[in-house]
Amino acid sequence: MIEEELIRLRRHFHKYAEPAWMEFLTTAKIIEELKNYNLDLYYGKEIYFNKRMGLPEKSILESYKNSISISDIEKKEEILDSYTGLIAVLDTKKIGPNIGFRFDIDANELCESNSLGHLPNILNFSSKNSFAMHACGHDAHMSIGIELAKILASNIKKLKGKIIFIFQPAEEGVRGAYSLMNNPIIDKLDYLAGMHIGMDVKSGEIGVGSHGFLATKKIDIIFKGKASHAGASPEKGHNALLAASSAVLNFNSLAQHSMGEARINVGKLNAGSGRNIIANKAKIEMEIRGENDHIISYLYDGVNRIVEGSAISYDCSYEIEIKGQAPSLISYDEEFIKNLRNYYKEKSYKLVDANLKGSEDIAYLLNEVRKAGGKTVHFILGSNLKDSHHSEEFDINEKDMLRGVNLMVDFVKYIEKIDKIDYERVENENIAYRI
Amino acid sequence: MIEEELIRLRRHFHKYAEPAWMEFLTTAKIIEELKNYNLDLYYGKEIYFNKRMGLPEKSILESYKNSISISDIEKKEEILDSYTGLIAVLDTKKIGPNIGFRFDIDANELCESNSLGHLPNILNFSSKNSFAMHACGHDAHMSIGIELAKILASNIKKLKGKIIFIFQPAEEGVRGAYSLMNNPIIDKLDYLAGMHIGMDVKSGEIGVGSHGFLATKKIDIIFKGKASHAGASPEKGHNALLAASSAVLNFNSLAQHSMGEARINVGKLNAGSGRNIIANKAKIEMEIRGENDHIISYLYDGVNRIVEGSAISYDCSYEIEIKGQAPSLISYDEEFIKNLRNYYKEKSYKLVDANLKGSEDIAYLLNEVRKAGGKTVHFILGSNLKDSHHSEEFDINEKDMLRGVNLMVDFVKYIEKIDKIDYERVENENIAYRI
Amino acid sequence: MIEEELIRLRRHFHKYAEPAWMEFLTTAKIIEELKNYNLDLYYGKEIYFNKRMGLPEKSILESYKNSISISDIEKKEEILDSYTGLIAVLDTKKIGPNIGFRFDIDANELCESNSLGHLPNILNFSSKNSFAMHACGHDAHMSIGIELAKILASNIKKLKGKIIFIFQPAEEGVRGAYSLMNNPIIDKLDYLAGMHIGMDVKSGEIGVGSHGFLATKKIDIIFKGKASHAGASPEKGHNALLAASSAVLNFNSLAQHSMGEARINVGKLNAGSGRNIIANKAKIEMEIRGENDHIISYLYDGVNRIVEGSAISYDCSYEIEIKGQAPSLISYDEEFIKNLRNYYKEKSYKLVDANLKGSEDIAYLLNEVRKAGGKTVHFILGSNLKDSHHSEEFDINEKDMLRGVNLMVDFVKYIEKIDKIDYERVENENIAYRI
Amino acid sequence: MIEEELIRLRRHFHKYAEPAWMEFLTTAKIIEELKNYNLDLYYGKEIYFNKRMGLPEKSILESYKNSISISDIEKKEEILDSYTGLIAVLDTKKIGPNIGFRFDIDANELCESNSLGHLPNILNFSSKNSFAMHACGHDAHMSIGIELAKILASNIKKLKGKIIFIFQPAEEGVRGAYSLMNNPIIDKLDYLAGMHIGMDVKSGEIGVGSHGFLATKKIDIIFKGKASHAGASPEKGHNALLAASSAVLNFNSLAQHSMGEARINVGKLNAGSGRNIIANKAKIEMEIRGENDHIISYLYDGVNRIVEGSAISYDCSYEIEIKGQAPSLISYDEEFIKNLRNYYKEKSYKLVDANLKGSEDIAYLLNEVRKAGGKTVHFILGSNLKDSHHSEEFDINEKDMLRGVNLMVDFVKYIEKIDKIDYERVENENIAYRI
Repeated sequence: MIEEELIRLRRHFHKYAEPAWMEFLTTAKIIEELKNYNLDLYYGKEIYFNKRMGLPEKSILESYKNSISISDIEKKEEILDSYTGLIAVLDTKKIGPNIGFRFDIDANELCESNSLGHLPNILNFSSKNSFAMHACGHDAHMSIGIELAKILASNIKKLKGKIIFIFQPAEEGVRGAYSLMNNPIIDKLDYLAGMHIGMDVKSGEIGVGSHGFLATKKIDIIFKGKASHAGASPEKGHNALLAASSAVLNFNSLAQHSMGEARINVGKLNAGSGRNIIANKAKIEMEIRGENDHIISYLYDGVNRIVEGSAISYDCSYEIEIKGQAPSLISYDEEFIKNLRNYYKEKSYKLVDANLKGSEDIAYLLNEVRKAGGKTVHFILGSNLKDSHHSEEFDINEKDMLRGVNLMVDFVKYIEKIDKIDYERVENENIAYRI
Repeated sequence: MIEEELIRLRRHFHKYAEPAWMEFLTTAKIIEELKNYNLDLYYGKEIYFNKRMGLPEKSILESYKNSISISDIEKKEEILDSYTGLIAVLDTKKIGPNIGFRFDIDANELCESNSLGHLPNILNFSSKNSFAMHACGHDAHMSIGIELAKILASNIKKLKGKIIFIFQPAEEGVRGAYSLMNNPIIDKLDYLAGMHIGMDVKSGEIGVGSHGFLATKKIDIIFKGKASHAGASPEKGHNALLAASSAVLNFNSLAQHSMGEARINVGKLNAGSGRNIIANKAKIEMEIRGENDHIISYLYDGVNRIVEGSAISYDCSYEIEIKGQAPSLISYDEEFIKNLRNYYKEKSYKLVDANLKGSEDIAYLLNEVRKAGGKTVHFILGSNLKDSHHSEEFDINEKDMLRGVNLMVDFVKYIEKIDKIDYERVENENIAYRI
Repeated sequence: MIEEELIRLRRHFHKYAEPAWMEFLTTAKIIEELKNYNLDLYYGKEIYFNKRMGLPEKSILESYKNSISISDIEKKEEILDSYTGLIAVLDTKKIGPNIGFRFDIDANELCESNSLGHLPNILNFSSKNSFAMHACGHDAHMSIGIELAKILASNIKKLKGKIIFIFQPAEEGVRGAYSLMNNPIIDKLDYLAGMHIGMDVKSGEIGVGSHGFLATKKIDIIFKGKASHAGASPEKGHNALLAASSAVLNFNSLAQHSMGEARINVGKLNAGSGRNIIANKAKIEMEIRGENDHIISYLYDGVNRIVEGSAISYDCSYEIEIKGQAPSLISYDEEFIKNLRNYYKEKSYKLVDANLKGSEDIAYLLNEVRKAGGKTVHFILGSNLKDSHHSEEFDINEKDMLRGVNLMVDFVKYIEKIDKIDYERVENENIAYRI
Repeated sequence: MIEEELIRLRRHFHKYAEPAWMEFLTTAKIIEELKNYNLDLYYGKEIYFNKRMGLPEKSILESYKNSISISDIEKKEEILDSYTGLIAVLDTKKIGPNIGFRFDIDANELCESNSLGHLPNILNFSSKNSFAMHACGHDAHMSIGIELAKILASNIKKLKGKIIFIFQPAEEGVRGAYSLMNNPIIDKLDYLAGMHIGMDVKSGEIGVGSHGFLATKKIDIIFKGKASHAGASPEKGHNALLAASSAVLNFNSLAQHSMGEARINVGKLNAGSGRNIIANKAKIEMEIRGENDHIISYLYDGVNRIVEGSAISYDCSYEIEIKGQAPSLISYDEEFIKNLRNYYKEKSYKLVDANLKGSEDIAYLLNEVRKAGGKTVHFILGSNLKDSHHSEEFDINEKDMLRGVNLMVDFVKYIEKIDKIDYERVENENIAYRI
């Protein structure tokens, strides 16, 4: 049964939750599940065309790698070098559209609840890793993606064109999508669909054409000053803690913009080594968000200016590093979305508004496809959640996963029906790197 | 007699109080009082060897000049161009020491009390100018200086060497002494004495060898940004008010120094034009003080850095202007001071400790003479004050002025007695510019 | 000719520009213009049902009052006591709707340009008062209102119901409308129309149903501390300047709200008396704006909290005073606005979107009428401006005023045509205080 | 002999370095070394008469306790409950003075250098604990104390009165001395001597009568706010990170005081949990220092006010905890110190000025003895240091320890010689708790 398979997979991924850029067992598991199907699997360095932002700290990474063992697979070393995720291609060898799906695979950096009111604890599939938990539903996303790929691969004869399944790492912190951009496989997509479970949409309902993606940048800032004894020679210190505190307060002056919503938040600040020492180091972890890319540029320029100014004020040096980013969505093809909504309504899906209320790095991929002339959509798969996203007792209603698979299968059917693109040209091209 | 003369002069100066660089009638009055004595009077541009800091605002200056009339005196135009003050030289034509006295002549920028409990109101000599009041006792200093000059000039036969009376403008805001430095008359002093009335010393007591002079700089800072409508286009403004507020808070990080007392104060901040406009201008009026010149350099560098940093943070430009300054005292000749104290004690003066607790730009002149090998002292002339210095009901006990004259006359007697310098060399030199 | 009359009136008002709560000559002029028409004039205390916020400073007020002379009119003393403005009622004595118009009458606190490129200077009608200038077009609003009243009064026989002309003082700083609320005349309006000239709409175009009104509060804050000498006893001061600077920086933390636009701006900050004194007083002039009243409450609570916190931090006391306020618009009757737009289109008016981009205290009156079941609209009368609103070379195109009169006349015609209210009930009531 | 013993002991203590309140093996070792001498040993709860400030975190404490084993001694459980340190009393049973010595025994919370240029690494006595290192010389202090006790105990017949050896825990962070105050043993001291090695005094030199002790408080502050999603609901958060940053900047306003040096430093700030979450917690670790207790009160009141104000500004709650404190020294008996200096000079010691430049909680004990009429002194034992105090390559010159023992022995000789107190009264008292 598909439903049982979905649950089996989801609980497996939930148990072996791995955070961004550390999806080692996860990637290996996806390979294992898909390798016996009629799919071309691409992974490791070959799917990366941009630098990877926000890689994990060495110590955590090494300690985790030492704790696991991965069965021998091709390019195991590349995967363990944080080239995680994979792209599976179902090539029907028939002229037709290139249809892409994107599923994100990383867990949150969170310690799962050990409460007995939390189902994974009772059924024994809560996360084995205290530093990672699937608290956003990516475990369900992957499971849906795997089952979708298997079903479509098993029905290859009924299909035309190519279907591409993107299992993207590092969506948390909006880090992974950027690294996969400019990938020839993605460049040549005629259609791209994304999907997220939950998001305040109830079980039984779906959203078609999510909007409200905020552009964002995740930024780390380090101020470096000079230590000195606070009692004996205060004037000899260059106070990085004060530079950071002043920057933090001044950042808020940027939050007002006539073009729309602007957000700025310093979520973490760690500074100094001891109470009697002038602090010589301070680290800020922050994010900015905006309704459009103008606002993001305005905020980012402002952050840079204030960091420079604060550093000069306290005679410190500084480093600014972008740890993740996502753009706003450049827009959908309105006609396409309108027709798609009608199609789903006719098929008796219950549609609701799909306001994403946050940032998602799939916007990079959706924009890339749209700019190249393709059509895109993002779905929300409703599910009654036990607790809000990113909370330690987050849990989905597993029964909703099947609806997710159907949603995607129906999407393929719809596209194959309406697609009018002249693929003569396409036939002579290979979308993949190999062959 | 002398006491009546002192009171007559002091009340005159009190009534016609003039603030720094606007001592027009004051300078003219001193000239008038001294011109018929055997004194060489130097004034106008010829006594200035450095730029004048902190000149008054044009509008106030012009408006005041239009309100007064000065009898025709030589170099009237120079005086009205803010080359105020004068130096009177009593040349005995006999070999002997060059003994200098310095008296400051400017009033405070303050509106005198109109209370009937305030003596100048009852006796009708309160300040005619709402923007100026002698609330620090410089009216008494000048009066003592004039009477001292007259007495010594009348006794020229009993004296040797030269006696120099420096009537210095703009002591408030520590502006005037700097402009008189490097003046050949002052360079060649063998002895220099300053004096201040009040300073928490009671009537009947005197301080000999005031210490505790703090070095200081008076600084104005202007931030210039860009205005914009706070509701419609907040992101277009460059907020000078926020730049200034941030600078003001960060300045306080400078106040700790292992070498001694450091002071920093922003006393005035004026910014912005209307509540719905992003402020495009902010003005800070501040001061720094320190036990020594190292601390002053540290503070001044820090202020510059924080101003630059704050300007960068808010994309503003800025101007920093020094409006006044005074150094710390490099020290006295301990032996000289010790002997001088004994001399006054023997003469039945009642001596107390003379901690000045503040900044005084006479330190420039005392240091200049000391560096050139001369000997210096600063006196405090006790007087029971009606209210504290710089307050609107400040008043001295006029009877104490006579003691001030005696103190100075006794100083001359003492010097002429102890002086052992070989003045052969000196005889062939002229200390003044003319002749 | 109406056009000539409009220009005559507008230039008169422009020349005798008077700021909020000082519209003495202005009110007298309106009375003079309207008194011989078939209108009931209400003014002075009788039209005020709420306290007046943001009254002018005594010294400015008195000095201005002494400089003018007003011909003897009834209740002259009340007008000179800042009960300015008036309400004119045209009572047809026939059953029909109560239609209100609101025109604002105050000038900006601004010194008009003396450039020869500025038309009022060439034609000799620039403001006689250096502290006031009609830089927002209220001179045109009043002129249109007066001519409209005259025309309608002259055509009373063709009309039914009552027409009410509200000449509101103190719109700048959003102060006046609040004081006129709960006024029985306004309570009983069945329709209310407002109008503003300019607002980025070009000559020849009009906006019907302005939206985008931001709720706002204008707030003054005073911190009171304790002065002390910055060099001698820094620890004895309670620093109001630092309290204010800290508050100003912390206010910006409030500017992010999930319900929509939030604005906060400190436009003016004045603190301290002298550079060597710990500042004992600081005054902040600020405003907050928000897309809805929830946001305004959030901002206002936050401002109060931060002011209290900053005062505690520096051992200061404080005062918070609301100097003006306006709500957001609760909404229009969509059907009414849609039909009205069609009506104007049919009459060949050129309609554009009417985004007000700011705050307007007419929102108080529009909301009051809407809540009581009436229908409301706000127009924008396009005009090519010489410079932006509130700038010292602001000028309208006077030819556009006639279109403003027509717009209002057409509004009356439309209402009288469509109005279906059963006024039996109304007939037995008196909308005004007298009769 | 003695020198070898000193080195053996010092290297032992250095190797088994234990930080404040965790001196378990250290205390046991001192007991072991002294138990076979003619000394009364007091330890565990019985020597504590005040609460212990700044106890270590539970997790670190438990983990360390689990890693060590202590041979069975009396009151082992009390010692392991952080009642560390001990007081040894040598009672001659003859009438005479009560002479106290204080030696501190805790290590710094520091990871010792593993460089081969660092002697303890070559000779294999570097700290076994990565969280503790004797980087201030307390290992030497204890060793000197133990040898001194052994020598004096072995010479009991030549002595009179009582000699008390206080081995004090938790001097780092100025925590331990306070807990030992009001102890009857200490109350009854007629003389008390402290000693510190290094402190910028060279090998071969000693300081007698250290001055410059700054009063201090070590303070932890926690702000507690409310988390919320920074993108979706910024207005729902209560931002503890901003409260802390604002407090940190405003603290600096306190650093100027007319009575002398004031120091304030936030050395550590840790806030927030993730970049997209409004931070709900912030922890500040800070210290204040002052030349006298008035300044400390002023600073502490100011810190409390600013913390309260910042908490109110951001709707946070807060906790303030004093983690350590020491007073300034109330002064020495000048005559006693002068004579003592002469004594040491005659004995060919090389004396230098002994400016401590920091805070030391022995001031509590010295003040207690002085207030009760006793005489006190603090020595500096010069030693050429390899690196500055509290640095990871700090090392003393071990040869200087012997001079330390001699210094103390000579002190006893001097006291027994000069002491003129009438001990009749004393004879009938018992200074200790038992007997």
